[in-house]
Amino acid sequence: MDLFEKFNEDRGPLGQHSDMDNTNFYMFPKLEGPIAPRMQFRGKEVLTWSLNNYLGLGNMPEVREADTKATEDWGLAYPMGARMMTGNTKYHEQLENELGDFVSKESCMLLNYGYQGIMSIIDAIVNRKDVVVYDAECHASIIDGLRLHVGKRFVYLHNDMESLEKQLVRAEKLAKENGGGVLVITEGVFGMSGSMGNLAGVIELKKKFEFRLLVDDAHGFGTMGKTGAGTDEHQNCQAGVDLYFSTFAKSMASIGAFVAGSKNVIEFLKYNVRSQIFAKSLPMPLVIGALKRLELLRTRPEMKDKLWTIVNAIQSGLRDKGFNLGKTQSPVTPVLLNGGWKEAANMITDLRNNYNIFCSMIVYPVVPKGVIMLRIIPTAAHSLDDVKETITVFEAIKEKLDAGVYRDAEISQLA
Amino acid sequence: MDLFEKFNEDRGPLGQHSDMDNTNFYMFPKLEGPIAPRMQFRGKEVLTWSLNNYLGLGNMPEVREADTKATEDWGLAYPMGARMMTGNTKYHEQLENELGDFVSKESCMLLNYGYQGIMSIIDAIVNRKDVVVYDAECHASIIDGLRLHVGKRFVYLHNDMESLEKQLVRAEKLAKENGGGVLVITEGVFGMSGSMGNLAGVIELKKKFEFRLLVDDAHGFGTMGKTGAGTDEHQNCQAGVDLYFSTFAKSMASIGAFVAGSKNVIEFLKYNVRSQIFAKSLPMPLVIGALKRLELLRTRPEMKDKLWTIVNAIQSGLRDKGFNLGKTQSPVTPVLLNGGWKEAANMITDLRNNYNIFCSMIVYPVVPKGVIMLRIIPTAAHSLDDVKETITVFEAIKEKLDAGVYRDAEISQLA
Repeated sequence: MDLFEKFNEDRGPLGQHSDMDNTNFYMFPKLEGPIAPRMQFRGKEVLTWSLNNYLGLGNMPEVREADTKATEDWGLAYPMGARMMTGNTKYHEQLENELGDFVSKESCMLLNYGYQGIMSIIDAIVNRKDVVVYDAECHASIIDGLRLHVGKRFVYLHNDMESLEKQLVRAEKLAKENGGGVLVITEGVFGMSGSMGNLAGVIELKKKFEFRLLVDDAHGFGTMGKTGAGTDEHQNCQAGVDLYFSTFAKSMASIGAFVAGSKNVIEFLKYNVRSQIFAKSLPMPLVIGALKRLELLRTRPEMKDKLWTIVNAIQSGLRDKGFNLGKTQSPVTPVLLNGGWKEAANMITDLRNNYNIFCSMIVYPVVPKGVIMLRIIPTAAHSLDDVKETITVFEAIKEKLDAGVYRDAEISQLA
Repeated sequence: MDLFEKFNEDRGPLGQHSDMDNTNFYMFPKLEGPIAPRMQFRGKEVLTWSLNNYLGLGNMPEVREADTKATEDWGLAYPMGARMMTGNTKYHEQLENELGDFVSKESCMLLNYGYQGIMSIIDAIVNRKDVVVYDAECHASIIDGLRLHVGKRFVYLHNDMESLEKQLVRAEKLAKENGGGVLVITEGVFGMSGSMGNLAGVIELKKKFEFRLLVDDAHGFGTMGKTGAGTDEHQNCQAGVDLYFSTFAKSMASIGAFVAGSKNVIEFLKYNVRSQIFAKSLPMPLVIGALKRLELLRTRPEMKDKLWTIVNAIQSGLRDKGFNLGKTQSPVTPVLLNGGWKEAANMITDLRNNYNIFCSMIVYPVVPKGVIMLRIIPTAAHSLDDVKETITVFEAIKEKLDAGVYRDAEISQLA
């Protein structure tokens, strides 16, 4: 059989809707203009709630200046080669030191990209004797790391400490038989639901079980904790996190990532993480740009304060109007509504076209069948007026949804 | 057992030498100054032969200007989010169109990073029924893609068409039983040995077997073929390559990558490659920088001509002096010498410290025990004087090696 023949029948969970996509409306939309709450979409201004630019750093004048200056000084090519071979500089090392200090870890390793970074970290620290126990809602990049693991892995119900304990009993037994160890993986803030990983709860179980803990804090770095050092700072349990990982793709408004931990383990990782020893180092302007972003993140707590002003305003405003925001404990604001694929498509069309609000829509299989999730990402760059406008619009679309307007309409009528 | 305890005993194949590394001499060295044949290493100028800046684009004034202008215009943060959600722009699409045209494919998909790009492409196109057959010397990123594959995979001896045919017999049988297809993976130019994948030979086997061919042409893109469109252009067999992949980390002197093929398959990939749908889009300055690099690559064939002048001079010069360059058919120039780890360390110390030449050294397990590979990467930016100087130095170190100087010396004496 031809290898490619299967694509004719099965286009994948997202690809099955690609025939609706020839206008870049639902998929691959283009948000134009500088990163801001108001951007251009298909020639019209929309109020944008879908960018993880939590602190508003993406378009801050100081950041834009630093990015430009660094590119002027170094170009986007330098350094070339993998970090270990020819891709190292004193700025890469400086950024590692500053990040490690900021998240209160002994040592830190810069990563050229978050996805391949955490995937290969998991790959490097476990061998076939080791057992991994992980939260059911972990990100795709973690799942790909787990798929590389040839030993056993056990999943526990999202944030369910009883379920985790059950799996730890199994994992510890198996690891002992094999002569291996146990790794627990969870996230600081889960990007879909906005719930916090119960890090303190996981760490409490270290009294009963022997394991190491890796936390992906992509959405918590910069947004959670007194200084913005992350969800483990917020939960006052930094010492119990053995490896702290975050991407630069959210609060830091860039690409790249880092992992921090004890000196001995980070040193091991520097020589053994495949996606780093066999791929190019992070380009210098991204390193110097990250140094500037980290400096602002540390020295301007008012950015995080402003973010939380917006978060609290939109979350309490929506809750007051009866909206179900699920279990969020973070800036990520899911709005859970009831409806199928057609209602969801009509609603997002109406939102984007007629109400000029741009947010992400998530449907089955990420959420259960019959649930529509509109996901709002507040940032420090939004205003309270933006919040007010949005709540009014959400009330209007909820009313239409309940009245059956989106169920009965043809999608093209609204577009 | 503590998960991290194993790191105390086994630091990994590269990490075992990390105690020699506290001066960033062998590992994590810092090459400072603009990308060029002459750069600074530990405060001294060295003649550098280790950067895959084949065409010299990395530090070309037009490229530096384009990089700076694009960063000034867009910042390094834009666009944010995954391509499918909020990370798309018309420039991303333009770059895809231009790359697809250049490599004579119907359609093209931009990737945010090469390593995770090809890994997830392999993951997306094969399912448990499919069988993969791959060259034994494929890059780590391909191997990681294969490790995600839950179906069968068969390896064939490097570039050995008889071995490939044997494995295709097995693969075709198994795929038929399963109701799956067969994917063959090889490279255009192998980065260690410099040998070309026998693409025409592989494609010839399509007359006897049904399979699809994925080629990673990281080192061939820009350097091989009449127009620089790659190794399949050089071998006049572009139509037989079903998926053509290249990173931007070599000739393009940047980060990011692309894959090109038929419209139907690329469209499928856009909706199903996990590292792309679940991770951030390539930042705009890298996209616009890539457009400029591609323009220069297409319109200035003299860069490739100059590259080959240097390649031919250094390869014929070294061969004339009796050096063994293995099977290279590309700019990658391995110099194979005999000796163990200590001799290799002494030699590279002497080269870097006393002869001011910086090239990479590769030892066991990448090459067999007792072999030392010094790898030279010529570029269009090198001069014939650089070549002359290097051949003279290589003669000198070969003489010392043969005379036992590196065997008898203490490493510190030369450093």
